[in-house]
Amino acid sequence: MAREARNTRKKRAGESTKKGGKLKYIPLGGLGEIGKNMYALEYGDSILVVDCGLMFPDDEMLGIDFVVPDITYLVENKEKLVGIVLTHGHEDHIGGLPFALKKISAPLYGTKLTLGMVGNKLAEWAPEITPDYREVRAGDVVEMGPFTVRFIAVCHSIPDGVGLAVKTPVGTVVHTGDFKLDPTPIDGRLTEYDAFSEEGKKGVLLLLSDSTNVERVGFTESERVLSGTLDKIFRQYRTKRIVIASFASNLHRVQQVVDSAARFNRKVAFVGRSMVKNVELARNLGYLHVEDRLIVDIEDISSVPSSSLVVMTTGSQGEPFSGLVLMSRGEHRVISLSDKDVVALFATPIPGNEKLVSGTVNRLFSCGCDVVYEKEQGIHVSGHAARDELRVMLNMTRPKFFVPVHGEYRHLVRHAQLARETGVAARNAFVLQNGDVLQLDGEKATVKDRVQAGGIMVDGLALGELQGSILKERRELSEEGLVLVSIVLSGAGELLAPPSFESRGFLHLDDAAKLKDDLVSSVEKAVLSLGGKAAADIDLLETKVKGRIRETLRRFGRSKPMITPVITVLGAPAKNTRGRRK
Amino acid sequence: MAREARNTRKKRAGESTKKGGKLKYIPLGGLGEIGKNMYALEYGDSILVVDCGLMFPDDEMLGIDFVVPDITYLVENKEKLVGIVLTHGHEDHIGGLPFALKKISAPLYGTKLTLGMVGNKLAEWAPEITPDYREVRAGDVVEMGPFTVRFIAVCHSIPDGVGLAVKTPVGTVVHTGDFKLDPTPIDGRLTEYDAFSEEGKKGVLLLLSDSTNVERVGFTESERVLSGTLDKIFRQYRTKRIVIASFASNLHRVQQVVDSAARFNRKVAFVGRSMVKNVELARNLGYLHVEDRLIVDIEDISSVPSSSLVVMTTGSQGEPFSGLVLMSRGEHRVISLSDKDVVALFATPIPGNEKLVSGTVNRLFSCGCDVVYEKEQGIHVSGHAARDELRVMLNMTRPKFFVPVHGEYRHLVRHAQLARETGVAARNAFVLQNGDVLQLDGEKATVKDRVQAGGIMVDGLALGELQGSILKERRELSEEGLVLVSIVLSGAGELLAPPSFESRGFLHLDDAAKLKDDLVSSVEKAVLSLGGKAAADIDLLETKVKGRIRETLRRFGRSKPMITPVITVLGAPAKNTRGRRK
Repeated sequence: MAREARNTRKKRAGESTKKGGKLKYIPLGGLGEIGKNMYALEYGDSILVVDCGLMFPDDEMLGIDFVVPDITYLVENKEKLVGIVLTHGHEDHIGGLPFALKKISAPLYGTKLTLGMVGNKLAEWAPEITPDYREVRAGDVVEMGPFTVRFIAVCHSIPDGVGLAVKTPVGTVVHTGDFKLDPTPIDGRLTEYDAFSEEGKKGVLLLLSDSTNVERVGFTESERVLSGTLDKIFRQYRTKRIVIASFASNLHRVQQVVDSAARFNRKVAFVGRSMVKNVELARNLGYLHVEDRLIVDIEDISSVPSSSLVVMTTGSQGEPFSGLVLMSRGEHRVISLSDKDVVALFATPIPGNEKLVSGTVNRLFSCGCDVVYEKEQGIHVSGHAARDELRVMLNMTRPKFFVPVHGEYRHLVRHAQLARETGVAARNAFVLQNGDVLQLDGEKATVKDRVQAGGIMVDGLALGELQGSILKERRELSEEGLVLVSIVLSGAGELLAPPSFESRGFLHLDDAAKLKDDLVSSVEKAVLSLGGKAAADIDLLETKVKGRIRETLRRFGRSKPMITPVITVLGAPAKNTRGRRK
Repeated sequence: MAREARNTRKKRAGESTKKGGKLKYIPLGGLGEIGKNMYALEYGDSILVVDCGLMFPDDEMLGIDFVVPDITYLVENKEKLVGIVLTHGHEDHIGGLPFALKKISAPLYGTKLTLGMVGNKLAEWAPEITPDYREVRAGDVVEMGPFTVRFIAVCHSIPDGVGLAVKTPVGTVVHTGDFKLDPTPIDGRLTEYDAFSEEGKKGVLLLLSDSTNVERVGFTESERVLSGTLDKIFRQYRTKRIVIASFASNLHRVQQVVDSAARFNRKVAFVGRSMVKNVELARNLGYLHVEDRLIVDIEDISSVPSSSLVVMTTGSQGEPFSGLVLMSRGEHRVISLSDKDVVALFATPIPGNEKLVSGTVNRLFSCGCDVVYEKEQGIHVSGHAARDELRVMLNMTRPKFFVPVHGEYRHLVRHAQLARETGVAARNAFVLQNGDVLQLDGEKATVKDRVQAGGIMVDGLALGELQGSILKERRELSEEGLVLVSIVLSGAGELLAPPSFESRGFLHLDDAAKLKDDLVSSVEKAVLSLGGKAAADIDLLETKVKGRIRETLRRFGRSKPMITPVITVLGAPAKNTRGRRK
């Protein structure tokens, strides 16, 4: 299939490939952050896009579901797009597609599993979109406009990942993708040293390399070490039901659990929506090898003795509605945990999830079960290369220019330092930010331009962009709550009814009669003090009312809620008190 | 001074010490959590209280400043209190005092530094309270009613910490306090093996032991290892200004920084309110040895060349308004960081602070300075004993009964397991919860009773108790925002003005004219649909209005804000729409 993939815009793009052309590398996400990876390579009037991920919100982003890259630049240049290449199926590389594909379109290149996961994602989030899928395999070489893309196998924590070598008119760009150099991968698919080395020998203009684990010394352990731990658990807890939590996308790990189960004559039940979905997809596509007889449906587990069962579930990160967390709360529909169970979390917390995981482990202990978790050895290995592996990659590719990608700012700084240590000229290693345009002519590389880039916050189903001011209000509301007062005036500025108070996220005023009385009289005084002007100058009244209310609250020693007056003047158009807060 | 400390209630308490009496151990905080440590020992009509800490809120507790123990039980029995004993000066052991001492009172026992820190705290938070301070030293033995309390020196991450051996009529209770067995403590004050062993030899009825680090194998490193790292940094960055962040209360660490500075001929400037305050207190009391000539005021640092200066600051946990964080944001009044600085964080993130620390490190890198942080070796050691040390403590004291304290649930479970491994009878190791009453008669121990216990959330200066429902509202507001509508009706149920809308933490309605128009007309329809009943049945009107608004919002694909109608009927008393939400 991949061999037939030909880009229709090739000719036009080719025409512009004239001598002295410049290549632009434009990161749109993934620099200075772990998440929403996306970048563009631009040459002449052709743009190649690589990855389109999402990022999960941090604690400051109240009510936000996730963040996707700002692709304004691509939308403005959408006729230039020659292809979107996906390196692997993780959310931070494909999760932005349902949003992006509503605004841009181009053939979608990826391996079979990656495209399968994109298909599932689009079916759920944007069923109206049917992309032009172009399946590729590691080893394939595909022309896309002026770019010739070579797909290179890399090991990662999801099967079928690829790195890229993109031949351009000014030189070759090598992108590692998310990788590690697992010496004994579960699926036997090694990171292709020969391909990276070959590119290095031919000459690499620019290397883009995964910076996630640059702070870790040494070499990341093989995923295979987990098999030993699994077997140990299966031996130690022969009589108990075994519940294992891990990442739904780490199909290597799922395979190891299934293999251990087979060795110890246990059946496996899969729990959690994404686990069930990924297992189904991976079995259909041939990435996961499980005999039917080994699988038991969650609904039928009562027919299997505890000592013959393994439950494989989501929730290793303490995600609030995941299988494991529901079990830990005693709220799972089918599985209730007790001292007849052992639960093993085969994952360490992703930064930011520490408290969720820790709370889950505490609750699991209080269910009475044994728990095997992050403080043990051999229950997790990273999917990313550590320092020694990053050095190997730099040594194999020997790039002229280097841009560390996929990392927070400190990772990028450290990775650039590492590159210099391995021989990249100091001025040729660039720590960039999303939106920076690195321009290369084969000899020199410079950052002169910037394009619009950043994060679009997605709130619920609306897929809307949230303004910063709204987040700021949410922050204030969350910390102090709100007091609102409705004031109804005649055109002459007289109160037509006593002011009505409401509070939310703040002391319930009905529980504080004295305070409420004082608030009512403070507003009455504010109105009176303005005489006839109250109805004429609503802004002034508002300021007065807020001042009086704040003063009254202060006298009661209360904190500082947001104060929102709503003033209605009868016989006048409704007035909304916009803009000013507090 | 301590020798004179005599409890005035001794006689009365002594009278009730009759044969067959029972001892109660009542944890009021610190079990199932790291924070707000506090417990009571009760015998006859005497109660001894140990520690009174606070806990910092978790992410769910919006707008909460901290949590203190519910001391209802002590308030109800306040005439029984014979003393409050403080083991050391950390917030999680003394931070609850400004609140507790407003409701209970008893002589306050602690070492000089601990009482000094209590004094500073009360001066700030509750200046009206002057406790009956009773200073003690390790080695002192003080009678408090039926209890004879022996103070035992222990090493911790703050000087002058103590453990306790409390002799009671039914046997001795040993409490380790927060401890480790630092083999080479900075102040030369070893944990007193002899005292613990002696108690063990005489017979320990109940051991209460610090569980914080039970998950860590081995032996916690000595605080002294940091000296080596400090000297290395001083040697490596001879020409740069050195900024060091650490805990303001870890005076051992401050001493090491000062000592390194002296060796390398640098002056030290202290930055951050708590750092300055603690250094002053510790110098006055003789816990910190710094020659005056070594200190430079922050205001005068421009007079000292960068290469001759060390800045010692707060902010190692990324606390939002700490010295280091202000510097990292370029917002510090005096210090601005550049490539002429190196910043070293001598601390690892406390669980929950990982993202704050990580963000701070990223910002520091982007200031251009070099950063030494958690991924390096030798920049932090814990203040708590690891597994091997906990075993030593169990072996020295050989308790009949064991209660692991100072830990989350999983720590307590693990520590109880460890105790059983060292010979405590399985049924004699208790994993308790705050409020459980463990009753001991010298032979048996049982948990039968519970007293009221839990957390009081403190919000701002009000020191008030926050209801769960208010927190729930804050959570909703923070995630979805709020839309409010003011409706003014005549007694006959006619709208006297168009409904007025306001939104907070939600789409600004003035930016969405069409939506706003639709909302107005949906409310008008709701009022019309009720005819004359609108003013008569406000509850019904409210329900209708909310339903119509929600429907309209749904049509616009927006998320689900809290909807709050405020209805004023002219000629009727103001009606506040309490109670129902959404």
